[in-house]
Amino acid sequence: MTGLLAPGWAGTDPLPDSAWVRAMLDVEAALARAQAKLGVIPAEAASAIARVAGEAELDLAGLVDGVHETANPVVWLVSQFTAAVSAVDPEAAEYVHRGGTSQDILDSAAMLICARVLRRVDADLVRTASALAGLVEAHLSTPMAGRTLTQHAVPTTFGLKAAGWLSLVLDARDRLAAVDPPVSLGGAGGTLSAYAEYGADPVALTEAFAAELGLAVPPIPWHALRTPIADIASALAFTSVALGKLAADVLVLTRTEIAEVAEPAVRGRGASSAMPQKRNPVLATAIATAARQVPPYALVLTQAVVAEDERPAGAWHAEWQPLRESLRLVAGAAANAAELTGGLTVDPAAMLANLRLTGGAVVSERLSARLAPILGKAAAKRLLTEVSQTSGDFESALRQAAGVQLDFDDLLDPARYLGAAPALARRVLARYRRMY
Amino acid sequence: MTGLLAPGWAGTDPLPDSAWVRAMLDVEAALARAQAKLGVIPAEAASAIARVAGEAELDLAGLVDGVHETANPVVWLVSQFTAAVSAVDPEAAEYVHRGGTSQDILDSAAMLICARVLRRVDADLVRTASALAGLVEAHLSTPMAGRTLTQHAVPTTFGLKAAGWLSLVLDARDRLAAVDPPVSLGGAGGTLSAYAEYGADPVALTEAFAAELGLAVPPIPWHALRTPIADIASALAFTSVALGKLAADVLVLTRTEIAEVAEPAVRGRGASSAMPQKRNPVLATAIATAARQVPPYALVLTQAVVAEDERPAGAWHAEWQPLRESLRLVAGAAANAAELTGGLTVDPAAMLANLRLTGGAVVSERLSARLAPILGKAAAKRLLTEVSQTSGDFESALRQAAGVQLDFDDLLDPARYLGAAPALARRVLARYRRMY
Amino acid sequence: MTGLLAPGWAGTDPLPDSAWVRAMLDVEAALARAQAKLGVIPAEAASAIARVAGEAELDLAGLVDGVHETANPVVWLVSQFTAAVSAVDPEAAEYVHRGGTSQDILDSAAMLICARVLRRVDADLVRTASALAGLVEAHLSTPMAGRTLTQHAVPTTFGLKAAGWLSLVLDARDRLAAVDPPVSLGGAGGTLSAYAEYGADPVALTEAFAAELGLAVPPIPWHALRTPIADIASALAFTSVALGKLAADVLVLTRTEIAEVAEPAVRGRGASSAMPQKRNPVLATAIATAARQVPPYALVLTQAVVAEDERPAGAWHAEWQPLRESLRLVAGAAANAAELTGGLTVDPAAMLANLRLTGGAVVSERLSARLAPILGKAAAKRLLTEVSQTSGDFESALRQAAGVQLDFDDLLDPARYLGAAPALARRVLARYRRMY
Amino acid sequence: MTGLLAPGWAGTDPLPDSAWVRAMLDVEAALARAQAKLGVIPAEAASAIARVAGEAELDLAGLVDGVHETANPVVWLVSQFTAAVSAVDPEAAEYVHRGGTSQDILDSAAMLICARVLRRVDADLVRTASALAGLVEAHLSTPMAGRTLTQHAVPTTFGLKAAGWLSLVLDARDRLAAVDPPVSLGGAGGTLSAYAEYGADPVALTEAFAAELGLAVPPIPWHALRTPIADIASALAFTSVALGKLAADVLVLTRTEIAEVAEPAVRGRGASSAMPQKRNPVLATAIATAARQVPPYALVLTQAVVAEDERPAGAWHAEWQPLRESLRLVAGAAANAAELTGGLTVDPAAMLANLRLTGGAVVSERLSARLAPILGKAAAKRLLTEVSQTSGDFESALRQAAGVQLDFDDLLDPARYLGAAPALARRVLARYRRMY
Repeated sequence: MTGLLAPGWAGTDPLPDSAWVRAMLDVEAALARAQAKLGVIPAEAASAIARVAGEAELDLAGLVDGVHETANPVVWLVSQFTAAVSAVDPEAAEYVHRGGTSQDILDSAAMLICARVLRRVDADLVRTASALAGLVEAHLSTPMAGRTLTQHAVPTTFGLKAAGWLSLVLDARDRLAAVDPPVSLGGAGGTLSAYAEYGADPVALTEAFAAELGLAVPPIPWHALRTPIADIASALAFTSVALGKLAADVLVLTRTEIAEVAEPAVRGRGASSAMPQKRNPVLATAIATAARQVPPYALVLTQAVVAEDERPAGAWHAEWQPLRESLRLVAGAAANAAELTGGLTVDPAAMLANLRLTGGAVVSERLSARLAPILGKAAAKRLLTEVSQTSGDFESALRQAAGVQLDFDDLLDPARYLGAAPALARRVLARYRRMY
Repeated sequence: MTGLLAPGWAGTDPLPDSAWVRAMLDVEAALARAQAKLGVIPAEAASAIARVAGEAELDLAGLVDGVHETANPVVWLVSQFTAAVSAVDPEAAEYVHRGGTSQDILDSAAMLICARVLRRVDADLVRTASALAGLVEAHLSTPMAGRTLTQHAVPTTFGLKAAGWLSLVLDARDRLAAVDPPVSLGGAGGTLSAYAEYGADPVALTEAFAAELGLAVPPIPWHALRTPIADIASALAFTSVALGKLAADVLVLTRTEIAEVAEPAVRGRGASSAMPQKRNPVLATAIATAARQVPPYALVLTQAVVAEDERPAGAWHAEWQPLRESLRLVAGAAANAAELTGGLTVDPAAMLANLRLTGGAVVSERLSARLAPILGKAAAKRLLTEVSQTSGDFESALRQAAGVQLDFDDLLDPARYLGAAPALARRVLARYRRMY
Repeated sequence: MTGLLAPGWAGTDPLPDSAWVRAMLDVEAALARAQAKLGVIPAEAASAIARVAGEAELDLAGLVDGVHETANPVVWLVSQFTAAVSAVDPEAAEYVHRGGTSQDILDSAAMLICARVLRRVDADLVRTASALAGLVEAHLSTPMAGRTLTQHAVPTTFGLKAAGWLSLVLDARDRLAAVDPPVSLGGAGGTLSAYAEYGADPVALTEAFAAELGLAVPPIPWHALRTPIADIASALAFTSVALGKLAADVLVLTRTEIAEVAEPAVRGRGASSAMPQKRNPVLATAIATAARQVPPYALVLTQAVVAEDERPAGAWHAEWQPLRESLRLVAGAAANAAELTGGLTVDPAAMLANLRLTGGAVVSERLSARLAPILGKAAAKRLLTEVSQTSGDFESALRQAAGVQLDFDDLLDPARYLGAAPALARRVLARYRRMY
Repeated sequence: MTGLLAPGWAGTDPLPDSAWVRAMLDVEAALARAQAKLGVIPAEAASAIARVAGEAELDLAGLVDGVHETANPVVWLVSQFTAAVSAVDPEAAEYVHRGGTSQDILDSAAMLICARVLRRVDADLVRTASALAGLVEAHLSTPMAGRTLTQHAVPTTFGLKAAGWLSLVLDARDRLAAVDPPVSLGGAGGTLSAYAEYGADPVALTEAFAAELGLAVPPIPWHALRTPIADIASALAFTSVALGKLAADVLVLTRTEIAEVAEPAVRGRGASSAMPQKRNPVLATAIATAARQVPPYALVLTQAVVAEDERPAGAWHAEWQPLRESLRLVAGAAANAAELTGGLTVDPAAMLANLRLTGGAVVSERLSARLAPILGKAAAKRLLTEVSQTSGDFESALRQAAGVQLDFDDLLDPARYLGAAPALARRVLARYRRMY
C-alpha cells in the first residue's frame, strides 16, 4: 500500500511493483510469440511461455533482493519465470528470454505502461476540456479583472480565462498524442546479435514484437539513444505545468478576499484537522503539487540521454523511479483537473464587485487612448498616472483633472472594455470542436 | 565583451544585449507597419517609425537602469524610442507602440531571435549529420567493442555507433523543426483591448504583425499561456543532450587507454597551461558542458508555465536569461558538433586491439547460444561464467572446459559476431537520405 | 553592457568578464608573491609580475577566442600576461604561472570573487534584517489574517509575519557565513607536482598563497573534489529562496483585493508601458525571479561534484556561468530586499478589514475549543463546519445553532485570538539582537 | 512491497507508508505526553493515548483514500486514531491531537524519520571512511596515472585518489552532522493559538514536545519557514554527489581497458541476463543512479521554501515524496559505498602498466621544468609539445630533440614524479583520525 504521501496521485497507486512485473511478463510472452511467428522457436513453446506468463505469481520480495545484486529486476525475473515455465513445460523453458537482454524487457515494459497511462491521461484531459468548453460558453461575456503582476490591469472575461486553460489542455493533448512509445529490442549490445544468431531476421522480429505489444517500431535499437524517454518526459512535464497554470489561477481566485470561484463542494472534502470552517482547495493543491514535482523528475530523464557506451552505468537506472512517479502524478493531475473543472463554482457577482474596486482605474488604458488625441499621448498618460495615485475617488478626480467633456459613464464601465476577449475565447472553442 | 566563462558558446556572444534591443526595435517597426496596413495609423507615421527603428542608437546603459525600475526593458525602450522618433517626426511619435504592452514587444523579440538561432542550429546539425553519414558509410563493418555498464559486452561496429549519433541528430532536427515561434500580441491584459480601441481588428492585426516578422500566428494571446516557451525549451534541451551523448562517447573513446577516436588536430587546440603533451578533447568537452547546463535552464522555462493571472510576477521575468543562455549554448554545441564530426579521426586498428583484450569473452553470448543446445541453457551459461572468471587465457580454458567440438576459431572471432549492426546502420543512413 | 534581460540583478552587471580577468591577474600576482616569500622565485621577479598584473590591459576578445581553443580562458591569459611581463622584464616572465595549471588560477579567481560578493550580500542582508526588525517591533500586535492553502485560517500578527521573514534572513546569513572560500592549488594533476619540482614545500606554498589572497587554506587540492562549490551553491540557493518567501508574501499582500502592504513609492517605479494606473511590485518581482533561477543553477553546481578523474571534461566547465549568474542574482535579490523592506508601507486598517471578512469564521478554531467541553469535541467541530458553510451571517447563525451562553463578543474578536504571535515575534527579535 | 525499480536503495524499502504512520502516531503520543507534563491534559489521558498509539493498526487503504479528500494524511489519521482511543478510553479521546494541526504532526513525523535515517547514513559513512582510510594507507605511494579531461596528465597515487574520496566522505559527514531536525509545532496558523487557548505555555510546550521526540527545538514555528527542509535537502544532495564522485571514478577505473580496480567479487553479483562473462560494477552503478536523482529531488525541496502565506497550497505537499525518496537513496548509497570500499580490489600492476602507456609523455610537465632553465620556458614547452605529438617513441624522440644531457632514466620514471601526493594523502588521514 503506497500513496500516503502523494496527494498528487488522486488515489491509490496506479503503478505498484506488481504492475511492472505484470508488464515484464507480458513482454516476455510477446517476445516468445514473435519468435514463434518467425519460426525461430516452436509454437508450442511460445504458447506455454505465454500461458505461464499470464498466470505466474512471482516472488516479489525475491525480485527486489535481486535488484541489489544485478542493478535491475530482470535477471532474477527471468530466473524465476524460467523456473515457472520449466515446472510446466521443461522444454519450453529453454526458449524463455531467448536472445533477450534485461534492457529489452524493462524498456519495453515501461513503454507498455506509458502507453496505457497516456491513454488514461488523455481521457481525463478530454473530460477536462469538455468541462472547460462549457465554462467558456457560459461565461463568454462575464467581466472580471485582468491581473498582471498581481494588480488589476484591464478588464477581461472569465470566458477568456477558461479559454486559456482550455487552450493549454488542448496543447497538452497534442503533445501527448505526438508520443508513440516504441518497443525496445537491441539484445546485449544493441546489435540484436543473439536474436540473429538464433536465426531471426532482426527487423522482422522487431516488427512482430511491436505488433504483439501494440507499440511502435523504433527506427533503431535505443538502449543508449533515449529519444523515446526524453519525449515522454517532455510531454509529461508539459502536461503537469499546463494543468499547473489552471491550478495556480484557481488558487488565486479562491482566496478568501477574491472568492470568484470555488472548488466543487463535497462533504468532508478540504477539511482541516484544526479549523472547522476550512474548505481548502484540495484539488487545485493536488494539481499544483504535481506541477512542482514532475518537471524536476523529467529533468532526470532528459539528462539520462547523455548516456555513454551501448548501455550506461547509472543513467538508465536513474530513469525508472522518476518515470514511474511522473506517470502517477500526471495521471493524478489529469483526473483531479477533470473533477475540478467539472464542478467549479463561478461567481460573476464577485467578479464584478472586484472589478469595481479601483473605481475606474482598471480602464485607464482606455481613458488614455481617448485622452491622447486631445492632450497628447504623454500628457494623457501623465494625467492618468497622477489621478490614479491620488488617495481619493478615481472617478471624481479624473473628471476634475481631465477638464474635457467625455462620456465618462460609458468610458468608466469595465464591462464595456473587454477588447477582443469574447472573440478570442470563441476561437479556442472552435479549436476544441475541431479536435473531436 | 562576454564569453570568457562560456566554452560552450563556441566563440563570441551571439546574443548580446544589443541584439535584443535590435529585435525589439524590429518588433516596434513591424507593429507600426501592421497597423498602417490595416489603416489604423497613417502610413507615413509607420514609415517614419520603421526608419528610425532601423537606425536608432539607444542608450543601453539607460535601458539597463530602467530594468531596475520597471522590471522589464521595454518601458524605457519605448520612452527612448519615442523620443528618437519625435526628434525626426513628432507626429509619428504619437503612433509609437500604439496599443502595445511591454510583453508584446519583448516576447515577440524573443521569438524573432529564437527563429534566427534555430535556423543557424539546424544548419549546423545538417553539417553534423552529413559528417556522421560519412562516418557510418566508411565504417559500416568496422568492428569495435560494444560496452555496457563500462564492460565489454558484445562486438558492435563503429558504423552503428556513428549511426546512433546520427539518429539522435536527426531526432533533434525533427524536434527543432516542430517549433514554430509565434508573435506575441495580447495588449495590456491579453484581450488586445487597446489595439481594438484604436480600431484594429485584433485577428487581422495579429496576422499582419506576424507576416511582417515572418513568425507564426498564435491561436490566442499567450502572455500567460507559455506553450511556445515550453516547446522551445524542450527542443533546446533535447538537442543539447542528444549532442551530449555524442560527446560522452567521444570522451570515452579518446581516453588514453582506449584511444579509438581523436578530435580533429588543430595547432594549439586542446593545449594545457601546464602540460606540453596534452591535446585535450575540447570540442567534446564544450558540447558536454552545454549538455549539463541547458536542461536545468530549460527547467526554469518549463516551470514558468505555471504562471498565475494574466501576467505573472516573476515567472515571466525568469525566462529571459535562461532562454538566452540556452540558445547560446545550443548554437555553440551544434557548431562544435559539426566541427568535431567533420574532422574526427577513427582508428580501426585500436578498436580491433581493444576488442581482443578479453580473449574471446566478448563473444560469450554467442558461445552460450551454441553450447546451449548441447549442454542445456543453464549449464552453458554457468560454464561460460566460470571460464570467464578464471584468471588465465579464456580461449584455452574454454576449449578445455567445453569438452565439445566446435569451430572455435570462427566462434571466437569478434568480427564474425556483429549481429545486425551493418543492417541497422544502413537503416539510419536511409532515414538520413530521405530527410533531404 | 549586459543586464538588459536581468531584472533580478538590481542594476548593471556586477561581474563582467573584465572582473574575472582582473581576479585571475590578482591570483597570478599572489602566486608569484607566495613563491617569492618561500624563496622559490626571485623577489624582483615577483614584484615585476605583481606590478604588471595590477596594470595589464589584456585583449579580452583574444581571450574569448582562446576559450574556444582550450576550453578555458587561462591558457591564453597566461600567454598574454607572460608577454606583458616580458615586455617590461623578460627575466621575470620566466617565472609567470610557475608550476601553475589553469584550474589553480580560475578556481582561485572564482573564490576571490565569491568572497567579495558574499560580503556585499551579507551587508544587504544586515540592512534587510534591520528594516524587518523595525517592522516586527512596530507591528508586534497588529492583527492580520493567517492564511493557509489560500484561505483565512486563524488570526496572526503582521509582527509575526515580518518575524518569519527576519528569521529566514538570519538563517541565510548563518548559511552564507559558514562558507569560507578556499584557494585552489593543485598543479597539473592535484599533486602540486611542478610547484614541488621547483622547490616549494606544497603546504607552505598553499598557506602563503591563501594569505596573499585573504582566502581559506583547503585541506587538500580540490580540482575534482568540489565541496567548496557545492557549499557556495547551497548557500546561494538558500538565500535566494529565503528572500523568495518574503517576495511571495509581499506579492500576495499587495494584490489589489488584499492591499495590506505596498512597495516603497518611487516616481516612475513600477510603471507600465500600457497602463497609466499601474504601480507594479517590481522589487518583489525581481526577488521572485531570482528565486526561480538560482536553485536550478545551483543544481548544475551540485551535479558537478560528480566529476570523474583528476579534472573532469565538462563538469568543471559547466560551473562557471551558473556560478556567476547565481552570484549576480543573489546580490541583486539582497539589494532589492533591503530596498523593499526599508520602505514597505503597511496598512493595519486593511489588515483588520480583511480579517473581518469571514464574520468570525476565522476564529472557529477557538470557538471549537470553547464548545468542545460543552458539546463534545466531534459535535462542536461538526456544528462549526455547518455554520461556516451556511450562506448567511456566521455570527447570528452561530449564536442560534450553538444554543449555549458564551461571551461571543469576546470570542468572535479576532484581535483577541492571536495565540503566541507576539511572544514568538519577540523571540526572533532577541535572536536578531544577539547576532550583532 | 516496493523497490523493484530502485537499485539505488540497496534493498527493500526502508520507508514504507507504514513507517510514516508509525512516526505520526509516535508524534501524537509525544504531543499528548508533553501536554500532560505541562498539566494541560490529564496524565491518564496521555497514557491511554500513548498506549493506543503504540499498538494501533490503522486502515492504511482508508488513509490513502483520505489523502485525496484533504490533501494530507493527517485528517483521517486523527479520525481513525481518535476512534481507536475512544474504543479503549472515550474520555482520553477528547484529548487526542488537542490544539494540533495536520502540519505539526506530519512535519514532526518527517523530522523523526530524517533523524533516524541520518543516523544510519552516518554509520555507513563511518564504515566507508574506515575502509577508505585503509586503502589510503595501503597505497600511499602506489603510482597511477592522474587523468584530466580524459587524458593522462601527470602521475598521482592511488593513495591520493582514495584520500580524495575519503575527504568527500568526511565533508558529507560534517554536512549531515550540521543538520539537527527540529519538531514542528505551530498550530493552525503558526501562532500556537489552540495550544495556548487550552492553557499551555507555547514555548514550554514546544520544549517538552521536542524532548519527548528527541528532536531539536526550533526558534519559531516553521510551517512556512522551511529552513529545516532546505538544510536536510542540501546535506542529502551533497552526500549523494560526494559518493557519486567515488562511483564515477570507480566506473572509469573498472573499464575493461583500464581495469585498475574491481568491485568486490560476490557470486551472482553483477550478472547479466544475456552475457555469461559479465561482472558489472553494480555497486558503483547503484551509487551513481542515486547521485543522478537526489539533487533534482532536493531542488523540489529547496524551491518549496518559496511558500506563500502561513501554509502554502502545493509547495508543502510537494516535499513529501522527494524527501522520502532522497532519504531512501542516500541511505542506499551510503550502504553501497561501505560495501564497495570495504571490498574494493586494487591492481597496482595494472596502474603501473597504464602509467607507462604514453612512454614518458605523462611526465612532460617535469621535463618542461628541467628543460626550461636550459632552453627557456617557451622553447622547452614547444619542444615537448612537438615530441609528444610525433607518432613514434616518446623517449627516443625526446633524447634526440632535446640535444642536452640529462638523467632521462630518472626523469622519465613516473614513480619519481609523484609531487606531494603521499604528503597530501597523509593530511587527509590525519583529518580522518582527528574525527573519531
